[in-house]
Amino acid sequence: MARKALTEFETIEIIREMLSGPAPGLVVGPGDDAAVFDFTTNSIILTVDAIHEGVHFTLDAFDLSDVGWKAVASSVSDVAAMGGEPACALISAAFGQPPTEPELRSLLGGAIEMSDQCHCPIVGGDVCSSKAGLSLTVTVAGTPCPSGSILRSGAREGDLIGVTGVLGDSAGGLYVLKSRSDGLRAAYPGLVEAHLRPRPRVSAGVALAAAGVSAMADVSDGLARDLSNICRASKAGCEVHLENVPVSDALRELAAEALLDPVTWALSGGEDYELVFTAAPEGFEEVAGALAALGVHCSLLGTVTGPASGMRLVSGDGEVTEMEGLGYDHFL
Amino acid sequence: MARKALTEFETIEIIREMLSGPAPGLVVGPGDDAAVFDFTTNSIILTVDAIHEGVHFTLDAFDLSDVGWKAVASSVSDVAAMGGEPACALISAAFGQPPTEPELRSLLGGAIEMSDQCHCPIVGGDVCSSKAGLSLTVTVAGTPCPSGSILRSGAREGDLIGVTGVLGDSAGGLYVLKSRSDGLRAAYPGLVEAHLRPRPRVSAGVALAAAGVSAMADVSDGLARDLSNICRASKAGCEVHLENVPVSDALRELAAEALLDPVTWALSGGEDYELVFTAAPEGFEEVAGALAALGVHCSLLGTVTGPASGMRLVSGDGEVTEMEGLGYDHFL
Repeated sequence: MARKALTEFETIEIIREMLSGPAPGLVVGPGDDAAVFDFTTNSIILTVDAIHEGVHFTLDAFDLSDVGWKAVASSVSDVAAMGGEPACALISAAFGQPPTEPELRSLLGGAIEMSDQCHCPIVGGDVCSSKAGLSLTVTVAGTPCPSGSILRSGAREGDLIGVTGVLGDSAGGLYVLKSRSDGLRAAYPGLVEAHLRPRPRVSAGVALAAAGVSAMADVSDGLARDLSNICRASKAGCEVHLENVPVSDALRELAAEALLDPVTWALSGGEDYELVFTAAPEGFEEVAGALAALGVHCSLLGTVTGPASGMRLVSGDGEVTEMEGLGYDHFL
Repeated sequence: MARKALTEFETIEIIREMLSGPAPGLVVGPGDDAAVFDFTTNSIILTVDAIHEGVHFTLDAFDLSDVGWKAVASSVSDVAAMGGEPACALISAAFGQPPTEPELRSLLGGAIEMSDQCHCPIVGGDVCSSKAGLSLTVTVAGTPCPSGSILRSGAREGDLIGVTGVLGDSAGGLYVLKSRSDGLRAAYPGLVEAHLRPRPRVSAGVALAAAGVSAMADVSDGLARDLSNICRASKAGCEVHLENVPVSDALRELAAEALLDPVTWALSGGEDYELVFTAAPEGFEEVAGALAALGVHCSLLGTVTGPASGMRLVSGDGEVTEMEGLGYDHFL
């Protein structure tokens, strides 16, 4: 049967139908020149992030619904990293070729699944054609924590450094997907899921902000780079103990099988969407308790130092390496 | 001399420096996980629009600064079409190849020029690489008219249809650029400018909303399609008198030289970013007066009819054609 591509008009009609549900705060939804949304505050968090075929995903490894999910998750995570709550999203979709109806429904369906989980309805967007493959650019607007947004620049010398969950699973999942091995994929479903369908830490971010952490970022480009961003913005250094970097048992197993170091995935892999944060030592126990109450694992990675000592990774036997330069540069 | 491409890190540093100015309402600017902006209301207009190399522009015709300008203008225009005022913007940029410093400064410089003119500071965004050429996706957030946003769905049978400015200049400019003729380009600078550096009708949109127009849209896909959208959303028909469609003298001259019909450019060309609107007959004079006070030309195009009579274009000698199907479909 021939592939039946939609016109732009048909595409927009299907999108409107799929996004037609009511949502608290929504005044004007998809279908007009712009959306109108009533927030609970007039201070708004705004962020945008894009994923591009061939750069962030390939369609042999990703189902279209995974692409939609991940695009929304990645932008929601930026709001979580400020300690805010997502409120609504816009999606700009560029299609290398006009989609069929099942393709469009799968792509948008995955985006809606993620946005529903985060109580962040998709209220607008646009579609167009592109000369490359598929890309989705997602804007998320949210509301800040009442006590203020948590910036990257608030870390102070002596603060402790913590991180939620485990790191490197997404990079391990990418390794599995790139191997094209059905055996590996069956053996490590959790790692693959971590790569295809990451879960932003919205409630953990809110809890960390309420508990008064001093700085926070999400782990999108690898712990090394995201923690470097905090140190640079805070004009500080840091000392991270490599044996404290949390990695899952599955990642350890895969790494052993692949003769690779799981901690390298944790430091440089990115797309884990965990939260890395700093907190004054006297408040760290409260912070860990707030995460525990949500069932979120918390690891103590090390300490914030003065800027002169640099950003150091210390191994179990005391060997020190510089953290800068690790992590993902999209242009290299 | 070799082309010196920037790393992602250098790119972000230059963007931060260029966007470092203060702005009323700005709480957290570029450089953190997300921006935070204090609006004057908690009802917010949100829109996103993208322009892609090879689809919306080519770099033989556009300077990079024009690309930046046009990307911002196109999203600001959506806020104008609701009768709102733009407040701030986010830009997501995808680069086919990492930019050089002069390229980045030109691109962002054009975007800043446009955003400054609209009092709509760029407060955040992201950069990444793409497998295709350059693309810019611009989100604009704004505040609605105090009396409410003007939707596409408010047109009523008997309303008059008006439009600001002239139509088709952008399509004429595109014709000139595609001709690659230096002579044509020198002869029609205004048309080329209309295509490269459109000016969204922000103050006209605010005035039209305040004057109580019943429906409004911006002319981004050609008058035929944008007015069809109003009729469809309003469950109405329309009758447009072709001799009333406003075209500039320059466009008439170019069309005569090219043996083409200038009104076709006006109906189907798009990217004029004028505002098409409907208003009750008894209020139309006030509406026209509000535009005149801003120095904005207003044309009366025709009337809104019942849905049964369709969307009709009537020529000077009474010939009637159907409007549907004219205008731009991005997927065809």
